[in-house]
Amino acid sequence: MSGAFSFLSHLECSRCHTLSLADAPAHLCTCGSPLLVRYHLDAIRTHLSKEMLRSRAPSLWRYHEMLPVRVADNVVTLGEGMTPLLPVKRIGQKLGIKQLFVKDEGVLPTGSFKARGAAVGVSRAKELGVNVLAMPTNGNAGGAWAAYAARAGINAVIAMPEAAPSITRNECAISGAKLYLVNGLISDAGAIIGRAVKTHHWYDASTLKEPYRIEGKKTMGYEIAEQFEWDVPDVIFYPTGGGVGIIGIYKALREMQDLGWIGERLPRLVAVQASGCDPIVRAWQEGASVSQFKEASHTIAFGINVPKALGDFLVLEAIRDTGGCAIAVSDDELLHAQRTLATNEGLFVCPEGAATLAAAQKLREANWLAEDERVVLLNTGTGLKYPDTVHVPIPVLQPHDDLSLE
Amino acid sequence: MSGAFSFLSHLECSRCHTLSLADAPAHLCTCGSPLLVRYHLDAIRTHLSKEMLRSRAPSLWRYHEMLPVRVADNVVTLGEGMTPLLPVKRIGQKLGIKQLFVKDEGVLPTGSFKARGAAVGVSRAKELGVNVLAMPTNGNAGGAWAAYAARAGINAVIAMPEAAPSITRNECAISGAKLYLVNGLISDAGAIIGRAVKTHHWYDASTLKEPYRIEGKKTMGYEIAEQFEWDVPDVIFYPTGGGVGIIGIYKALREMQDLGWIGERLPRLVAVQASGCDPIVRAWQEGASVSQFKEASHTIAFGINVPKALGDFLVLEAIRDTGGCAIAVSDDELLHAQRTLATNEGLFVCPEGAATLAAAQKLREANWLAEDERVVLLNTGTGLKYPDTVHVPIPVLQPHDDLSLE
Repeated sequence: MSGAFSFLSHLECSRCHTLSLADAPAHLCTCGSPLLVRYHLDAIRTHLSKEMLRSRAPSLWRYHEMLPVRVADNVVTLGEGMTPLLPVKRIGQKLGIKQLFVKDEGVLPTGSFKARGAAVGVSRAKELGVNVLAMPTNGNAGGAWAAYAARAGINAVIAMPEAAPSITRNECAISGAKLYLVNGLISDAGAIIGRAVKTHHWYDASTLKEPYRIEGKKTMGYEIAEQFEWDVPDVIFYPTGGGVGIIGIYKALREMQDLGWIGERLPRLVAVQASGCDPIVRAWQEGASVSQFKEASHTIAFGINVPKALGDFLVLEAIRDTGGCAIAVSDDELLHAQRTLATNEGLFVCPEGAATLAAAQKLREANWLAEDERVVLLNTGTGLKYPDTVHVPIPVLQPHDDLSLE
Repeated sequence: MSGAFSFLSHLECSRCHTLSLADAPAHLCTCGSPLLVRYHLDAIRTHLSKEMLRSRAPSLWRYHEMLPVRVADNVVTLGEGMTPLLPVKRIGQKLGIKQLFVKDEGVLPTGSFKARGAAVGVSRAKELGVNVLAMPTNGNAGGAWAAYAARAGINAVIAMPEAAPSITRNECAISGAKLYLVNGLISDAGAIIGRAVKTHHWYDASTLKEPYRIEGKKTMGYEIAEQFEWDVPDVIFYPTGGGVGIIGIYKALREMQDLGWIGERLPRLVAVQASGCDPIVRAWQEGASVSQFKEASHTIAFGINVPKALGDFLVLEAIRDTGGCAIAVSDDELLHAQRTLATNEGLFVCPEGAATLAAAQKLREANWLAEDERVVLLNTGTGLKYPDTVHVPIPVLQPHDDLSLE
């Protein structure tokens, strides 16, 4: 084990805790719940100190001992990870949050945090001998998995709502994925993929239906801890659709505790949803342990338009166990927050990422956040993929014209 | 000097070599040529070893001694720099180039290499007390400078051809820049900005009309050298419009020689243009030291649609002095190369970046490149900003449909 690239041990059901072997393609537990990846953390503890990370290359693979790829040659990478943690002081001052940060996932390959899950998920799929993978997507995950699948030499089949950001079609198509548009929501696309996977015996790469996507996403948690020099922040806001980001960060926090890298105190995790699609917020408010399917869900923040998440109970557990909460913001509020981040800090974030700022403002006003807490907003993607969120009239000049300043 | 954040010394005209002071806003030399920034390289040589860089954060500011910002607090950053250097083995094998790499600038903030010039240029403008900056752009530079200006609290005035990628309008507008579209080329936009700068006494941030943008771009050269462990590659391909990227890399190479960090051998620098806008290629073929204005220029690779570059003579000098060359590729060739990179390697690059692959293929076929040479293609931006380069028919399904595999 010592000297191994990965200290992968086995899989464990997130609900019934049944254990299973990791070295064949695995999907849901027989009880229908997602599987979590477990490692020989005691062995890692002896083998690796957090100080040893410093000199490693700035990608998520710096945490390879706690990632599931056994052989380094199977790593499929586009250089993803170690995204910037940016202080946003001007906005922090306005909101009365002295130490406000944005972790900017928009600078990852394919322009969103989905690259993390795809990098690790596709690498492991390659290692397990997968030839064809299939998945539904709200756009960004499809773009990312199509790209990494192309680099791995794996065929990808992807189904996407017609209303998903159109640039993500290009990403899938140019990478050679077999792409289908669906006149419906991601839940409809998921049902189509579910049937196709059974018929064709493809590898189901749907959210939480294979265990390795979480492992990529959890590296956000490792990076945040490392960037705060292992003194974790007080609160992390995360836009929540399928919920894998927040589940992954929570998993990383628990692993880092087991490794002795961080102490007892954890950041309060806040799940942010859009008012038009807020099943987890409703479940949280009702004290329920699972969410109800949200009928006729809608929001301009397309990535979090997920009416029912398979991992809803894991999201609710993560926010409960860390003393966090779930909160919804309206499309108007998140679009306003998007402009605020761009105008004040030059950050052109996606609508989902912008929602976290709107949520932080609300929770500060409610005094749920204190003035001196260290607060991280996760921006999950670049605004470049959402051309329709900005509408400004722009004057057109002829070459002989001069600028007119009104 | 020892312990200083920057070892900035003075400015020097790139043509007549007149020296000038660096600590006031500066634009062109009285002779009309661009100014270059000079440093106390001897002092840096004593103060800083290349080994000391290893433990620094992965941004271009790791090279701060060789950058012009004197006070660390004036740094305006969105986390730019240390972009991945990705082996593209599958394509290399097809082309007979065993060691082929893409340096992917698409993962920078604002999605293009322009972030480097903007980060350093805006930081220095802030340090010099600038309140309003103005510039023409083919899109990406405007998007980047608008973002960094917003973060710096500087007002930006930007003029852009109507035909520039439309998403770059959003970037400028949402960051609060004063944006104008121009019914013409970047040269027309440049003339309008030139008149406005005189009238309103704004800071002219046009390409090469202030000396600090090059300094940001040159960090590509430092990064490439560091990523190759100071044994520089044999050839670097660069898409060339205004030429600042190639000028900056050449400047970095010369500085690193003076610092004793690299040896005598330099990479051959190759300027890649589009057939529809190839003034530097023509000048190179004719053995001229400057280029002629290209009439009715056109190419889908909009960022390199620059009919006459102010720094053309510096580009020609860089490729001559390194044993490089200049080469043009057609729009069909570069679009084909764009698909090749996406399908084979999952890299969705911009058309400008794709042009470098088309050029490498041509030069390999002509045996100008040898099979065992280490070749770097500079991808200057993400394909996400160019939705119109991909056209694939995509089937639409109803929720009850099954996937149809033909």
